[in-house]
Amino acid sequence: MTASLLLRNVRPYAGATTDILIENGRITRVAQGIEAPAGVPVEDGRSEIVIPGLIEAHTHLDKSLWGLPWYKNEVGPRLLDKIDNERENKKRLNIDPYRQSARQSIQSSLMGSTHIRSHVDVDTEHGMWGVEGVMRTRDEYRDIVDIELVAFPQSGLLRRPGTLELMDQAMKAGCEIVGGLDPCAIDRDPKGHLDAVFALCQKYGRPLDIHLHEPGEMGLFSFDLIVERTRALGMKGKVTVSHAFCLGVDAALVDPLTAELAELDIAIMTTAPASRPAPPVRKLIEAGVRVCSGNDGIRDTWGPYGNADMLERAMFVGLRNNFRRDDELRMALDVCTSEGAKVMEIEGYGLTEGSNADVVILPGETVAEAIVTRSPRRRVVKCGKVVARDGVSIRTAP
Amino acid sequence: MTASLLLRNVRPYAGATTDILIENGRITRVAQGIEAPAGVPVEDGRSEIVIPGLIEAHTHLDKSLWGLPWYKNEVGPRLLDKIDNERENKKRLNIDPYRQSARQSIQSSLMGSTHIRSHVDVDTEHGMWGVEGVMRTRDEYRDIVDIELVAFPQSGLLRRPGTLELMDQAMKAGCEIVGGLDPCAIDRDPKGHLDAVFALCQKYGRPLDIHLHEPGEMGLFSFDLIVERTRALGMKGKVTVSHAFCLGVDAALVDPLTAELAELDIAIMTTAPASRPAPPVRKLIEAGVRVCSGNDGIRDTWGPYGNADMLERAMFVGLRNNFRRDDELRMALDVCTSEGAKVMEIEGYGLTEGSNADVVILPGETVAEAIVTRSPRRRVVKCGKVVARDGVSIRTAP
Ligand SMILES: [Zn+2]
Ligand SMILES: [Zn+2]
Repeated sequence: MTASLLLRNVRPYAGATTDILIENGRITRVAQGIEAPAGVPVEDGRSEIVIPGLIEAHTHLDKSLWGLPWYKNEVGPRLLDKIDNERENKKRLNIDPYRQSARQSIQSSLMGSTHIRSHVDVDTEHGMWGVEGVMRTRDEYRDIVDIELVAFPQSGLLRRPGTLELMDQAMKAGCEIVGGLDPCAIDRDPKGHLDAVFALCQKYGRPLDIHLHEPGEMGLFSFDLIVERTRALGMKGKVTVSHAFCLGVDAALVDPLTAELAELDIAIMTTAPASRPAPPVRKLIEAGVRVCSGNDGIRDTWGPYGNADMLERAMFVGLRNNFRRDDELRMALDVCTSEGAKVMEIEGYGLTEGSNADVVILPGETVAEAIVTRSPRRRVVKCGKVVARDGVSIRTAP
Repeated sequence: MTASLLLRNVRPYAGATTDILIENGRITRVAQGIEAPAGVPVEDGRSEIVIPGLIEAHTHLDKSLWGLPWYKNEVGPRLLDKIDNERENKKRLNIDPYRQSARQSIQSSLMGSTHIRSHVDVDTEHGMWGVEGVMRTRDEYRDIVDIELVAFPQSGLLRRPGTLELMDQAMKAGCEIVGGLDPCAIDRDPKGHLDAVFALCQKYGRPLDIHLHEPGEMGLFSFDLIVERTRALGMKGKVTVSHAFCLGVDAALVDPLTAELAELDIAIMTTAPASRPAPPVRKLIEAGVRVCSGNDGIRDTWGPYGNADMLERAMFVGLRNNFRRDDELRMALDVCTSEGAKVMEIEGYGLTEGSNADVVILPGETVAEAIVTRSPRRRVVKCGKVVARDGVSIRTAP
């Protein structure tokens, strides 16, 4: 599935123009005036920007409504309203996890994402339906995007008996990551919830990526329990906390925790939400904490927004953190590229010789301009193969 | 400058399909199966959505960098850093107010805005340069968009002697609105600043639209002084407060003020910023307060964001206010259409018989989908004439 390709006249991160030779899915040379080896196709980058593939580090491939008739959202305001509404209507609305994850994966790929971490619902209503559907997409679309699965107890873990057994089954089936959700607010048993998900991590030797929407002091309490277990179980570098709205409160409360995040290499995923307190991206990165981002749900029963564009998400990271300077916009892009790759532990990520040939060519004079303009991606390259041209994927959705 | 046109098969606000007959710049009939009068051109709306023209109720046409080489932003973090940096570099960067306002106005029009309220810098460094440039654009591009000018003391009013005299000159030259800026934080003399701008309003019989970035209690103090003068001078319905971040603090502090806003019909402009406290849109509208929005500065020395799209701004209003339901997305659109028209006191605004023929045809199954998708506008109609087709304006920029 790897390919060779010569990219002529591209500007890595909007720097000086160069050529990039890709052989068998790897970048083998970065220099000016490279001759194309016999039989290797050539793409002229027209002095446009080249960056490594965008990293969609948090989404829900199994439940997008992409391509279905418009869903008229009349859902109540609480988190539980949205959870229950979705679980009760998934089959009625014909949200087939295979078809919908394929659709979103193609959309994501043509927008330049080369890697996706997808949380996938595991609940007693649908069992393995989601996991099996997304795994089928993962296998069938391996040529355009890498997908990793988080077994995700969206409806709660302990409050709905039978879910923990299904989570175990999902991990056995090959999910790469254990998920979790609001140990206080949803399961109302933080110790029970966290002991259970950490036990799954231990049993399968897998990392944790837990949704933590809990605000303020409640969130900080749950976070403290997560930190405690990460330390006790030797899971340094193996835990991601998604959303972490509680990190958006007073610095006096958050600073001590930030130091522990750095020490235990606990990663933070933020969508940079406009309507919630949010983790301070610059401060965390400067403290040495890995920070990634993701589009979260794309056009689902939770909300209508999203087009799977991680450049748009970089813009949201910038807007939320009041980033205006060019170096700040570069940091927003890093969150959606190199930082995301660190969180997903992607080996060989980058634009240097020896890196995976997962790259995106995009219009723009500078990185900042590329983010604020978000033109269709000129080329998306996965493992050395062009998988999207001018916003059109080589794959078609079911 | 008015024209006639038959729009076939359009869906007002995504409702039932109908035809709309426009004669001499006015909507004269809304019904199914209208025959085109002799000589009247016909546009087939293909059952797409039609809405009245988008209202850009707050921008700065005179200082966009649109179409200039990328400006590398290395500006300091304070408001005054941005103000001083801009004033000191405007000429060096070749930010000609006529050319730049023309460029942004065309961009704004092809995105579907039919009316623009532009604040225009008035300062001792540049005198009437901005006002004259934007007035020239207003006159030359009257066929595609209506522009109204706010004389805006961007660098402060009292802290830079000579500015007040220039403000007077700008009003005499025909600016429609008196502007103001942070009476405490920038001018450091709230009584002096507000007495001066309200006196200009009285002298010229014109409304006020004041920038108020001041946060929390300081902002509420300035706001209280504005309310006091609005009441004392009988300026009910003639004052807009732009940004009003201070309305984003605790409801206990804001609720008494909200009642006064409704009573004195003081309007609020919010860009729905992600990184600041922001006015609660639903709450204000439900209290009877007019709430409009705008893109504020587009790609200027303050920041790189923006494409002059008021549908994107409706999305930001939705994201900032945690709007997810279809009725909430409609409210976000109202802020960028009918509410904005109320703030700008546009007569004859709407889609009913007798309204101005300023309308936009855009793809989407529902209003919510149109907002989250933001496809190129199919047609933009100003005074009955098609002024943009599929994202291309009939006018070209200087
Ligand atoms: Zn999520
Ligand atoms: Zn402004």
